Amino acid sequence: MAPVTNGRVLFNEVPTGYPEPGKTTVYDESQKIDPDTVPLHGGILLKTLYLSADPYMRGRMRKPEVQSYSPPFTLGEPITGYGVGVVVRSEQSDVKPGDHLYGMLAYQNYSVLSSLTGYRVINNKHNIPLSYYVGILGMPGKTAFMAWKEYSHAKKGEIAFVSAGAGPVGSFVIQLAKLAGMKVIGSAGSADKVEFMKSIGADVAFNYKTENTLAVLNKEGPIDVFWDNVGGETLDAALAAANVHARFIECGMIAGYNNGGQPVKNLMYVVGKSITMTGFIVGRIENKYNDEFYATVPELVASGKLKYREHVYEGLASAGQALVDIQKGVNKAKAVVKVAEA
Amino acid sequence: MAPVTNGRVLFNEVPTGYPEPGKTTVYDESQKIDPDTVPLHGGILLKTLYLSADPYMRGRMRKPEVQSYSPPFTLGEPITGYGVGVVVRSEQSDVKPGDHLYGMLAYQNYSVLSSLTGYRVINNKHNIPLSYYVGILGMPGKTAFMAWKEYSHAKKGEIAFVSAGAGPVGSFVIQLAKLAGMKVIGSAGSADKVEFMKSIGADVAFNYKTENTLAVLNKEGPIDVFWDNVGGETLDAALAAANVHARFIECGMIAGYNNGGQPVKNLMYVVGKSITMTGFIVGRIENKYNDEFYATVPELVASGKLKYREHVYEGLASAGQALVDIQKGVNKAKAVVKVAEA
Repeated sequence: MAPVTNGRVLFNEVPTGYPEPGKTTVYDESQKIDPDTVPLHGGILLKTLYLSADPYMRGRMRKPEVQSYSPPFTLGEPITGYGVGVVVRSEQSDVKPGDHLYGMLAYQNYSVLSSLTGYRVINNKHNIPLSYYVGILGMPGKTAFMAWKEYSHAKKGEIAFVSAGAGPVGSFVIQLAKLAGMKVIGSAGSADKVEFMKSIGADVAFNYKTENTLAVLNKEGPIDVFWDNVGGETLDAALAAANVHARFIECGMIAGYNNGGQPVKNLMYVVGKSITMTGFIVGRIENKYNDEFYATVPELVASGKLKYREHVYEGLASAGQALVDIQKGVNKAKAVVKVAEA
Repeated sequence: MAPVTNGRVLFNEVPTGYPEPGKTTVYDESQKIDPDTVPLHGGILLKTLYLSADPYMRGRMRKPEVQSYSPPFTLGEPITGYGVGVVVRSEQSDVKPGDHLYGMLAYQNYSVLSSLTGYRVINNKHNIPLSYYVGILGMPGKTAFMAWKEYSHAKKGEIAFVSAGAGPVGSFVIQLAKLAGMKVIGSAGSADKVEFMKSIGADVAFNYKTENTLAVLNKEGPIDVFWDNVGGETLDAALAAANVHARFIECGMIAGYNNGGQPVKNLMYVVGKSITMTGFIVGRIENKYNDEFYATVPELVASGKLKYREHVYEGLASAGQALVDIQKGVNKAKAVVKVAEA
């Protein structure tokens, strides 16, 4: 086989506000690779199929001297994110061509992995679309499932509020809260997302752009569990409408990702209402729940008991657009970049 | 005995900023009472000895329509707070003249209690000054002892940061953190308070008015446990200097009590550092720890192993001053209003 283009999405510039395709990231086709002959040095050649565009990635688009839980992207190098690929060649005995791997991948067509460390061989016995393994069966799904189990202390009859309730994390959380016998309130930013939240069981679903969040919560609350993907004003409303002993699960605060952080004014309620607010990163609780997750969630998805939907961006060159769309919330569902046919 | 003046501290006006003696509260001597003949209707006549002035009381100086965990003061009526009194007459069989009671009292010289419900008969076998029963042996002491046990998850070698570390709660917490084998950083607002924090074992003690909190924490941290009495900028600094999996115990947020709340900008660290932030009201966890508290803390105080100090305001008429001093932090130690000789 002759050398082929190894398309790459390079980190080009630290953004100050929203990331901009062609500026923050550039799609580059200057690199060639020969899949038949590229030296593996005992490793694996993986062809990228699907890449996940996730809100937390905005935090990696920073200057290297700023500390955070995930490493910064390197200027001039491909960005990385969760992805699924197919093994093309392997010099590792426990993986063979045709196997599918899930893990942190460079945003490029082909990658040489030095070993399987950090990757999971996908056992797709339920024949689920492979792209789901970067969504409901990947990091976002684990985020919802594991943190809900660890922190919600859900009780039947209580009230949950889920912000960004139509996204891959929020929509899973809505369904987990309904399974726990709770009344569920979901918020999102479009009529279509509101319809989706209702279709997966939300008792109350509203568009925060056209309805006042605090007014809805005051009418439908007080809330016992708040799943926070947003922070800022939504968090302030949830604090004001919280019940005594409410649990706030702090999954993300996208309201502040592109403007240097949004202040929160109502934190005093944490004291008076005995609220517990827990932040988490799924990688820190993953080991405890991984077996249970893979033993139960794929079957729920395959049987249709657990609803999920995607917004597919076609081609690696569209990754930059996916990355800004998820910051603005204009994607319609879980953003997946389809890099190649499975 | 002829009728005597029953001096009272009346709630006169809802403050917008700091409470003002003579305006927010007024000392009134218009009521007379005859201790010998006032009808008890089966209850108890109590003569007030000591009253506690506590920061949370600012929250009760509000309009009645505003909801909060503690009831609002009633305009024209005496304010209430924790106090110690001596029984003058009793029509209850389980309490007799000369007994001392601890509980929520009106800010007035004499009170008729309908029953013992809500009051504790003080068993002062260690001969501790009775005023201590509104401080380290009362609500503030319970606040420190019980919430530390419940929420700190302290580990030897970890680092604790205690704001308002010279107060009745903070100074107890510093000593609890040292007992747990932690390195302890304390902050307060005067050189005298800094000296006191050092004298009770703080490894690092600083005056937040003359030193930058974040700079101290960046040098001496990262912090694993933050005992927050302050909120606002101090909380922002603690968030920035927190370690992964830090526990934030939210006891109070006095920075916002007199200005409508101080915004917090660094809440995003809650997610990335997997911080757990727990607010509490001691009354909600008290039943679990009351026996242990009274079985252990009085002896520690009597033996001098647990250090404590007071700032005594002489006379009921000085209560208004005590109430504003604790909001501004100009009191020197636990503010106690001495109403009468024991």
